[in-house]
Amino acid sequence: MRYLVLSAVLAFAPLSLLADPLPSWTNSHAKDQIVAFVDGVTSQDSPNYVTLSDRIAVFDNDGTLWAEQPVYFQFIYAMDRLAEMAEQDPSILSTPALKAAAEGDLATVLQGGHDALIEVVNASHSGSSVDAFQSSVSNWLATERHPDTGLPYDQMTYQPMVELLRYLRDEGFTTYIVSGGGLHFMRVFAEEAYGIPPNQVLGTYGNTSYEVIDGKPTIVKAPGIAFIDDKEGKPINIERTIGKRPILAGGNSDGDFAMMEWVTAGDGPRLGVLIHHTDADREWAYDREGLVGKLADGLDKGPNMGWVIVDMAQDWTRVYTGAN
Amino acid sequence: MRYLVLSAVLAFAPLSLLADPLPSWTNSHAKDQIVAFVDGVTSQDSPNYVTLSDRIAVFDNDGTLWAEQPVYFQFIYAMDRLAEMAEQDPSILSTPALKAAAEGDLATVLQGGHDALIEVVNASHSGSSVDAFQSSVSNWLATERHPDTGLPYDQMTYQPMVELLRYLRDEGFTTYIVSGGGLHFMRVFAEEAYGIPPNQVLGTYGNTSYEVIDGKPTIVKAPGIAFIDDKEGKPINIERTIGKRPILAGGNSDGDFAMMEWVTAGDGPRLGVLIHHTDADREWAYDREGLVGKLADGLDKGPNMGWVIVDMAQDWTRVYTGAN
Repeated sequence: MRYLVLSAVLAFAPLSLLADPLPSWTNSHAKDQIVAFVDGVTSQDSPNYVTLSDRIAVFDNDGTLWAEQPVYFQFIYAMDRLAEMAEQDPSILSTPALKAAAEGDLATVLQGGHDALIEVVNASHSGSSVDAFQSSVSNWLATERHPDTGLPYDQMTYQPMVELLRYLRDEGFTTYIVSGGGLHFMRVFAEEAYGIPPNQVLGTYGNTSYEVIDGKPTIVKAPGIAFIDDKEGKPINIERTIGKRPILAGGNSDGDFAMMEWVTAGDGPRLGVLIHHTDADREWAYDREGLVGKLADGLDKGPNMGWVIVDMAQDWTRVYTGAN
Repeated sequence: MRYLVLSAVLAFAPLSLLADPLPSWTNSHAKDQIVAFVDGVTSQDSPNYVTLSDRIAVFDNDGTLWAEQPVYFQFIYAMDRLAEMAEQDPSILSTPALKAAAEGDLATVLQGGHDALIEVVNASHSGSSVDAFQSSVSNWLATERHPDTGLPYDQMTYQPMVELLRYLRDEGFTTYIVSGGGLHFMRVFAEEAYGIPPNQVLGTYGNTSYEVIDGKPTIVKAPGIAFIDDKEGKPINIERTIGKRPILAGGNSDGDFAMMEWVTAGDGPRLGVLIHHTDADREWAYDREGLVGKLADGLDKGPNMGWVIVDMAQDWTRVYTGAN
């Protein structure tokens, strides 16, 4: 019985009493702000106390929970898959962007901007069941390596953010991904990498159809993008899927601006956490320029809205969950 | 301490040991099948044991969790709201169906079939913020009464189904609504009526937009239906939103057929629960005829797929949560 009582006490003790919940964060202003916010919303005697069911935290994925350079990892998968599909049927490479993508010519594809990215994703992500698609992603993650770091892509998740997600859940938060990345793609690794189950992954999705194939009901990935979970699409998707305004939002690019603006404009305690890519040595340094992860509005307006601006070089003692 | 220990024991004891979890169900074959299924998936030593995270149950709403005659309750709200809106601006009644709806002439609207229903819902459900819309629904539920029973609409929920939802949750299930009804409409009462929080309500939804109005970020209900959560739309929406195939599905009409087919065709233990409206005395008796709640495929093919067919007149000792 004594053992059980002790277990019960430990189980309900705030994690912060036991150990630093964010060991890969330096003792900076950013960390202080995050911990103070969490302490406030979880202390029953605090004026900022928030009930469990309203402790909802949403995070972008690309550039916020894992890296996104030289291009969104899902796009590298799309190019690999397109090349594979073209071996069976070369006629699918019907546009210059698709041809360039299948040849791995990223520079040419990027010249086409977001439209070219979507064209490539659309062509490479339809025509199979969801199950078959996710097996393909799973195999790809298990075998392919990032061209610069040599790491498996799912080890280029950010250790400090994995700690933040766990810390928030330990403090009663429900954690969601809300990303421009593909719903079916992210669900393959989100539970293992981040502890985030399928129903808490929100993302861009294509059309799907329900078909009974050889007597077997199957969800099939059909051509066409049904919803783009970026910019204003993020708060729209959160409202539609979660049905409440979260109290914490994390992001890194202007694609996250509307989500963070909406979240932090709500009544009561709110926190925006903006990841600023400042670390050219351990990761990449970028913000106002480029197609991937462009960040200008957040840097200009975020501080006035009280957002925590995380300086990766200064605020993180470690970057990737994989060795680096 | 003794009190705490006793509480802990009671908290973890299977509810079935303490009391009948389904007191408003007669001791029928239907009830036996449901209880046997739940016992199987929750007993660790059963070959049918299912882990907590996979204990997902989905239920249609109209005709399954609450009544739907003489027409979907949301449609009565839509007509009332349209009449109210037309007082401000009569020009919105631009079609015969809209005119008939605003006059409360249900028979004429129903002649237009599902297209007319959608036209009326579309016109009456857009043009305000989600918050303002939900306040309007909340007021309507508080003041309006069903023309036949005199009950508030949210007391025409089915007591046996409320018990089933609670029983499933007590046994570790997560319960979802997956309905052709409107997402924003259902969320107003689903938590209080069924214990189902906003993120576990899936339904039909219109377009929404993200707008900063007078400096205040707002989600606005825009014109146009974005997704119809009926027929094949149900398994598609479940896959998209929940990301797993549930192990239990409940419905009452052919709009639920694809969802129940998909759920019960999965590997391992599966249960389909089909509510058959057989009770002309206490409720309504209907199946193969009519616009609302048409049920033919389920009756013809459900038994071969092992579905439990619930005979409301025989299997339920009580119908509504409100007095009846």
